[in-house]
Amino acid sequence: MPEMRQNPVNGQWVVIAAERAMRPQDFPATREEPRVSDCPFCGGREEETPPEIWAYRQAGTDRDAPGWWVRTVPNKYPALVPDGILAEHNEGVYSRMTGIGAHEVIIETPRHQVHFHEHPVGQVEEIIRMWRDRYCDLARDYRIKYIQVFKNHGREGGASIEHTHCQLIATPVVPKSVMDEVVHGIERYRQTTGRCVFCDMMVQEQAAQDRLVLEAEHFLAFCPFASRFPFETWILPKHHKTDFGAISEDEIKSLAWILRETFTRLAQVLNNPPYNLILHSSPVNIPWDPGYHWHLEILPRLTRVAGFEMGTDYYINPTPPEMAAKILRETIEDLGPSH
Amino acid sequence: MPEMRQNPVNGQWVVIAAERAMRPQDFPATREEPRVSDCPFCGGREEETPPEIWAYRQAGTDRDAPGWWVRTVPNKYPALVPDGILAEHNEGVYSRMTGIGAHEVIIETPRHQVHFHEHPVGQVEEIIRMWRDRYCDLARDYRIKYIQVFKNHGREGGASIEHTHCQLIATPVVPKSVMDEVVHGIERYRQTTGRCVFCDMMVQEQAAQDRLVLEAEHFLAFCPFASRFPFETWILPKHHKTDFGAISEDEIKSLAWILRETFTRLAQVLNNPPYNLILHSSPVNIPWDPGYHWHLEILPRLTRVAGFEMGTDYYINPTPPEMAAKILRETIEDLGPSH
Repeated sequence: MPEMRQNPVNGQWVVIAAERAMRPQDFPATREEPRVSDCPFCGGREEETPPEIWAYRQAGTDRDAPGWWVRTVPNKYPALVPDGILAEHNEGVYSRMTGIGAHEVIIETPRHQVHFHEHPVGQVEEIIRMWRDRYCDLARDYRIKYIQVFKNHGREGGASIEHTHCQLIATPVVPKSVMDEVVHGIERYRQTTGRCVFCDMMVQEQAAQDRLVLEAEHFLAFCPFASRFPFETWILPKHHKTDFGAISEDEIKSLAWILRETFTRLAQVLNNPPYNLILHSSPVNIPWDPGYHWHLEILPRLTRVAGFEMGTDYYINPTPPEMAAKILRETIEDLGPSH
Repeated sequence: MPEMRQNPVNGQWVVIAAERAMRPQDFPATREEPRVSDCPFCGGREEETPPEIWAYRQAGTDRDAPGWWVRTVPNKYPALVPDGILAEHNEGVYSRMTGIGAHEVIIETPRHQVHFHEHPVGQVEEIIRMWRDRYCDLARDYRIKYIQVFKNHGREGGASIEHTHCQLIATPVVPKSVMDEVVHGIERYRQTTGRCVFCDMMVQEQAAQDRLVLEAEHFLAFCPFASRFPFETWILPKHHKTDFGAISEDEIKSLAWILRETFTRLAQVLNNPPYNLILHSSPVNIPWDPGYHWHLEILPRLTRVAGFEMGTDYYINPTPPEMAAKILRETIEDLGPSH
């Protein structure tokens, strides 16, 4: 019989269709043909992007010129823009607001490379430092209330450019789904127990073991109990940390290792699947402490978000997370000592 | 500058990226190759589906034999199943529940036909009658709390079988997104104004005119103010109706006309796009009156639900609904008199 499971943080249900128990080889192939080599993100073609916002580059090299190893530019087709007045306007039952915020692209390497896990681990650290730098810079703008770092990979993951990159969108309103997690999940649980629901979740995962994927010095990777997608994997700081922007150098090294190792295993097991990588962190510039526990969510996109999911926010997942975690644990990769 | 708009019912925001103003020809082609002709939904192959639950068929013909014109069967890979005990079980921070419910497939015609709008209008009426019959039958099961009728069309819409069909999933828990609409949207608005937010929305749409698509005797079709998807279209009963299951014969005729006409126009304008059609109705078997206003939502799937949407529940829509509605209004189809 199928089983329903509830996400303890936001209250959403998933259906674990364990009868189907889809293993990696049961999903249709998602291998993609390489796209045009005409790539505006490659080193030497800096003039084809909007002027850079921030780059890690060799001393003495010019802005918007070669010599960088991680480079952030505005999205050419921004969802939200930094210049203008933030103004809300009501019209009968409707509210509208000027689209103030930011939409940036973080180009992870000047080489035309497609997959995140092909970066050396030191490069992954630099990418995480860039997330942190851009996050902290945008958080200084009082108009910004939430900063979403994310990565779309592969066609089914929504990537329109093949060259490996992440994005960052800063919004002037805390998204409803984030408020739901913060108010209904974190706050309600804390009022009842005095503890953080994510911290308790990790205690339980470490005792049960069956959904664990990897452990590093500062981070834990596991397939969540109420996984919406096959092989969904979360990476959480082992100690309670509210704000991604406050990540330490030690934590960056630890995160780089576990993130690269997780993606290596997902790529090996699922043949370079399409996915979304999503940062969940606290709202910024709000006059109260949400007590959130920041984390990363990796959502492989091997199943479709269709009518049922859009209508009910239930997800149907044909791969039990215990099976996914076991497969990911048993995929041996020797990437050197963990951090 | 992009504009943010809020859905007055559930509080979610969308970004209307009006600079891009994507018109129908700007979207990548979604035309699909016909798939295998080996179709288990075609008339004459009834033994290839699970035994039928209900069918409209010629007098004297047998169950699971030819002679039907609309036929409902269990989904071969059900998300939820009707037989078993509904039991919830807690385990530390987690809750799980047996997957009790129903998952049915409504085969809209015995002919191998791909598109909904190719049905004669009388056939559309029969399909709506089948929705109602199955809806009312399942609502009699006290374990069922929500009934989701939906249709996935095209690969990007999540359809795995080409032969035109809808689905119905009945769940033992009211989905969180439905509770959000009912409690936060409907109930809060009613406490403030004494009125239904959907009714007030229609008054405003009929005054403004610029998002209207079509009007029938009992229904209004318009592109919603906070459209998440390009050419998103909602169809609402013009008078306050809580429960889809109570739809009248007159309303069925009117809905069949406006639904078929809307799909004809979408198919013409967007070259048979992939889409989801989703019924939103009241929860069932709950001890209070949610005062919902049932309606249908058509979501063309020309843009991707990716990392930003998954992380924030903001949607980015490159086609302003006023532009979409104008294009749909001006596409002239002569389908006979409206109902």
